[in-house]
Amino acid sequence: MSSAYGKTIRLNIFGQSHSAAVGMTLENVPAGEEVDLDELHRFMARRAPGKNSYSTARKEADLPVFLSGLVGNVTCGTPITAVIYNTDTRSRDYESLRYVPRPGHADYTAAVKFGGNQDIAGGGHFSGRLTAPLCIAGGLAKQFLSARGIRVFARIAAIGAVRDEGKLTASVSEKEFPTVSDARGEEMKSLIAKAKSEGDSVGGVVECIATGLPVGLGDPIFDGMENRIAQVIFGIPAVKGIEFGAGFGAALMTGSENNDAFVVKRGKIVTETNNAGGILGGITDGMPLVFRAAFKPTPSIAKTQKSVDLRTKKVVDLNIVGRHDPCIVPRAVPVVEAAAALAIYDAFLGAAQDRKK
Amino acid sequence: MSSAYGKTIRLNIFGQSHSAAVGMTLENVPAGEEVDLDELHRFMARRAPGKNSYSTARKEADLPVFLSGLVGNVTCGTPITAVIYNTDTRSRDYESLRYVPRPGHADYTAAVKFGGNQDIAGGGHFSGRLTAPLCIAGGLAKQFLSARGIRVFARIAAIGAVRDEGKLTASVSEKEFPTVSDARGEEMKSLIAKAKSEGDSVGGVVECIATGLPVGLGDPIFDGMENRIAQVIFGIPAVKGIEFGAGFGAALMTGSENNDAFVVKRGKIVTETNNAGGILGGITDGMPLVFRAAFKPTPSIAKTQKSVDLRTKKVVDLNIVGRHDPCIVPRAVPVVEAAAALAIYDAFLGAAQDRKK
Amino acid sequence: MSSAYGKTIRLNIFGQSHSAAVGMTLENVPAGEEVDLDELHRFMARRAPGKNSYSTARKEADLPVFLSGLVGNVTCGTPITAVIYNTDTRSRDYESLRYVPRPGHADYTAAVKFGGNQDIAGGGHFSGRLTAPLCIAGGLAKQFLSARGIRVFARIAAIGAVRDEGKLTASVSEKEFPTVSDARGEEMKSLIAKAKSEGDSVGGVVECIATGLPVGLGDPIFDGMENRIAQVIFGIPAVKGIEFGAGFGAALMTGSENNDAFVVKRGKIVTETNNAGGILGGITDGMPLVFRAAFKPTPSIAKTQKSVDLRTKKVVDLNIVGRHDPCIVPRAVPVVEAAAALAIYDAFLGAAQDRKK
Amino acid sequence: MSSAYGKTIRLNIFGQSHSAAVGMTLENVPAGEEVDLDELHRFMARRAPGKNSYSTARKEADLPVFLSGLVGNVTCGTPITAVIYNTDTRSRDYESLRYVPRPGHADYTAAVKFGGNQDIAGGGHFSGRLTAPLCIAGGLAKQFLSARGIRVFARIAAIGAVRDEGKLTASVSEKEFPTVSDARGEEMKSLIAKAKSEGDSVGGVVECIATGLPVGLGDPIFDGMENRIAQVIFGIPAVKGIEFGAGFGAALMTGSENNDAFVVKRGKIVTETNNAGGILGGITDGMPLVFRAAFKPTPSIAKTQKSVDLRTKKVVDLNIVGRHDPCIVPRAVPVVEAAAALAIYDAFLGAAQDRKK
Repeated sequence: MSSAYGKTIRLNIFGQSHSAAVGMTLENVPAGEEVDLDELHRFMARRAPGKNSYSTARKEADLPVFLSGLVGNVTCGTPITAVIYNTDTRSRDYESLRYVPRPGHADYTAAVKFGGNQDIAGGGHFSGRLTAPLCIAGGLAKQFLSARGIRVFARIAAIGAVRDEGKLTASVSEKEFPTVSDARGEEMKSLIAKAKSEGDSVGGVVECIATGLPVGLGDPIFDGMENRIAQVIFGIPAVKGIEFGAGFGAALMTGSENNDAFVVKRGKIVTETNNAGGILGGITDGMPLVFRAAFKPTPSIAKTQKSVDLRTKKVVDLNIVGRHDPCIVPRAVPVVEAAAALAIYDAFLGAAQDRKK
Repeated sequence: MSSAYGKTIRLNIFGQSHSAAVGMTLENVPAGEEVDLDELHRFMARRAPGKNSYSTARKEADLPVFLSGLVGNVTCGTPITAVIYNTDTRSRDYESLRYVPRPGHADYTAAVKFGGNQDIAGGGHFSGRLTAPLCIAGGLAKQFLSARGIRVFARIAAIGAVRDEGKLTASVSEKEFPTVSDARGEEMKSLIAKAKSEGDSVGGVVECIATGLPVGLGDPIFDGMENRIAQVIFGIPAVKGIEFGAGFGAALMTGSENNDAFVVKRGKIVTETNNAGGILGGITDGMPLVFRAAFKPTPSIAKTQKSVDLRTKKVVDLNIVGRHDPCIVPRAVPVVEAAAALAIYDAFLGAAQDRKK
Repeated sequence: MSSAYGKTIRLNIFGQSHSAAVGMTLENVPAGEEVDLDELHRFMARRAPGKNSYSTARKEADLPVFLSGLVGNVTCGTPITAVIYNTDTRSRDYESLRYVPRPGHADYTAAVKFGGNQDIAGGGHFSGRLTAPLCIAGGLAKQFLSARGIRVFARIAAIGAVRDEGKLTASVSEKEFPTVSDARGEEMKSLIAKAKSEGDSVGGVVECIATGLPVGLGDPIFDGMENRIAQVIFGIPAVKGIEFGAGFGAALMTGSENNDAFVVKRGKIVTETNNAGGILGGITDGMPLVFRAAFKPTPSIAKTQKSVDLRTKKVVDLNIVGRHDPCIVPRAVPVVEAAAALAIYDAFLGAAQDRKK
Repeated sequence: MSSAYGKTIRLNIFGQSHSAAVGMTLENVPAGEEVDLDELHRFMARRAPGKNSYSTARKEADLPVFLSGLVGNVTCGTPITAVIYNTDTRSRDYESLRYVPRPGHADYTAAVKFGGNQDIAGGGHFSGRLTAPLCIAGGLAKQFLSARGIRVFARIAAIGAVRDEGKLTASVSEKEFPTVSDARGEEMKSLIAKAKSEGDSVGGVVECIATGLPVGLGDPIFDGMENRIAQVIFGIPAVKGIEFGAGFGAALMTGSENNDAFVVKRGKIVTETNNAGGILGGITDGMPLVFRAAFKPTPSIAKTQKSVDLRTKKVVDLNIVGRHDPCIVPRAVPVVEAAAALAIYDAFLGAAQDRKK
């Protein structure tokens, strides 16, 4: 198998939760892109675990080490490889899971797929830890886009039934708990704390916006912006749904309600509404690109669950030990940004081939 | 640009609404797959326009002509190309749209992207007509899967706010109006008729299920079944959202509610519930694979709309003439099946490389 | 399997010798490229069979029919598909070859590979006829390159032991028998006539040059110009070797003899010699790109040969009926140009991503 | 740019001569392949520099460190990444070359291509050092093939005008100076020593054979074994030509001489001769696969050469300091084996999709 993404660029993610390192190679980045490593570290830190009461206690510096592709802080045109060495890799906790798969995890499907050769330690290649190299690549893409006036930012739109309120702006994504409404944010934190105290977990929704996009990114049919973004976003563990613009709500509208009329503002062609989420025919129309991703609750919970012993085919009680995020959504916010930025940067580079030069 | 899909197989779709033909090439299909052309024609007919009052009056036989890849009715291992010749291609209606883009369509984005060289006739490569070659490929994939005990079928889950009721079974998809509940189907038809009489349109939701899947299809991270299916489903015009299993509903559950416990039934490991929609870690777990796709209302409506003349940058009134589907959802049902079957067949072939043989 | 080529563009060739058509789809060609169909027909005619005594008597117009990708004579940005319908497809001659493979052909290897499902008529997908769609694609690429000042042309460098003499220029490739020296050309024709009269065949070498290339096309390691050109040139049936610049001769030189010194001519950096064939580190250096391809003699000969009956595993005498080119090299000259033009056009488009814009 | 190879597997090579590491990621290797690390080290050692008088004095352990993809010594199905840390990376020697490109090297073409952002230290990504990660990947492929009875081995066929004699067998490739004839080997060493003493260098030819191949590997047209092997072999710096079987010699034969008659030996269909080099129609025919690659003389020589100062566009004298291989061919032998093994392993895995299972 391959864990790769991209049409013009190509991101390859490698590593297992407890192998020597996790990492990524990003190919086809033009020479001459500037990288701000401090900015990248700040971005990575937004995803890092162990920061507070609602995330796992596993502590890792998560500092990417660049092995290739940069000369100083500038891309030199060759493949960029960066790794994060795995230092906190005690494999003791996992051997018991070889024959008793955790519900909601890939233990069972991986065991069958790879014929028992899968790496079970820490979830192996299926671990949420693999979103760290995704954030290296996406963090770079965010910088490369920012240099061209394109901004990508996200928020927690909902935790369980608690929904954020207000208009998402770029600065929200930098908040320690990225909601527009702090009041709603506090409600969300309470919900997470409650789930944690009950040995349970909760899910939620992340909303992401990209602004400053030129008209014309993305392609018809299979390589539209929706297809490209969906493919990368479902690469984040626990995502079970995605919608663009009005999304599932568009199915409830009439055409005259849903169509975004073209108008002119400050000499620029725009649409009056943005039900399309900035995408027409798969291609950016210059309006903000908007999408939301649904996250299921963390499958690792403290409550006793039913599973099956693969050797005996008997149902057994399963108790998962160790500490896990009672809600993955807050840490997922930068990961969603990273994934979206990658998709957009890829489409941006690809659009250079649209017309004869 | 490229309109291509697949990891092991590769589908390429070519053609414009009013070019000599639309068609597809399907590469990497193993030699020895049997094709039932009558069955394929029946499947294609489910998508064909002009059948009834709720679809467009443009009549086309939509019969695929195979140019290569078959010897008799058996694949010979080489690329399979099939085309549908475009016979009803009066381009007169479209020249007026070159400078006044239709809201909700790709007219504006394509004009900018291709620098004015885009094919405007009938929507060019962005036309819903390009779902016909997708149905050729997907119709073949359905047959190849069926020969292995895997069935893919879909229904109208909702039109506007009217939702279907009852459990989806394979025979439902063959109905002339594919809902489980005929009563709900009649309500949906009324809603479509009402929109049509008002010169408007409505959207809806299609639900699709695949049964008989082995454990182990799909890959971690970017090539999971969700990623693969999302990439192809967003290739159907008007899709604005997709969710798997409990989908956006999973975001409202706790982990203990959402996790599907492993149990044993008739000697086989299954899950008690199926909130995962048959996919764990991107990989099929042997349960039915379930997803829903949201369709926006048809953007072509008879009501007067606002647009902008690209030459003058003035807002103008736009009246779209010609006849269009007031609701695309009924005809989209086989297209969703085709798309899903392609993704599954592709993953099926790819899974042959999972373990050393 | 797939018969596809390209990194930025993607050419897919489909069809069998006796299927409804042979054809090609060329993806990722920018919108706005102009196509001269008359010029394309003239180019295709250089490859067409039946022109004279040294090529097969099978007569075919070989006129490409464009199904998509053009609006008028300009590319519109979508995949370009063109086909040549097979009209002279009497399959009677081939059934006897199902169990008695022809030496030097793919009959045996295809039978094993595809488990007996291969298309045996006329050599199926292995037929030299499949170079016709390669010439469509390459003919287009030649035109797109020519509009940018890049010319690709070739000659017969040798037939058997007879070698052409003199310096290859663009006009040579247009000659009915493309050698620089007409005297040597006459010797070659005699050699071909002799082989024909003996029921035998001869091989030879084609040399190809591209001029007007910018510095910087091609990539390090696996996507250098040598790799790219070799991959496409070995796609021409009967090619068994390729060399660039001094080629195998470079192995006989010292470094001080083989290195091409940099000098300045008319203000431009050039090399004094061109042993590198215009390629350094896989990348064009601005000098003419030069390569030679070795063709084995046509395997279809009238002489009785030994083969094995696959059913009985007994050695049998094989007599191949029908008329075949006693030497494929003259008709291969435009095919080599087509293949080289494709590789260069592909590298040209890809080079747009080398540096941040 | 990308430095990637493969259809079913995918090898990506990253790193520059003086970056933190060089390395490779190998994707799509099935789970369950066994790796013998000692054997891999022995194989890598055959390529390592500094062993004797005819190779560079730069000493490096060249020990690959595996970061992912293995559990113990067995592949777990996820991407395999291995790196070699660069320890001997004094960049002092190279700054002077930024503006005065070395003849025969990629200095000039890279400078133009990457707009001055290229990594000049040690030749950057163009360095022969990048063949080390190729040997990691190819060394693994050799082991995976060997477990299936397929052996890949090579020899020095020629240094300058001195040609090896005798039949190549597997054990020859393990020799310290891998020629069949030790007498010819001594002559070759003398030739290298002479070139070295004169501050010059010499080229040569490597011959490679693969035995034990099943019938049916490789594909028609662009993915034949010739195309696949050529693409990877030209990835080795200094290769300027490749030929299969009789190769350029086939161009001198008649069809009746060159065709390999099918016969039966010990119940198995084989060919009497092997002018095809084991490949018919791009597909293995069960006979030994044979090819030869021509290497130009090392471009780094001690003799004074002419070059151009890119700033002033004046011709200047260039003296290259440092120690370099007077002949790269001996160290290239395992690299050729590695490259060939990769191509064959890739085709082997791909062939699993040829027929319906």
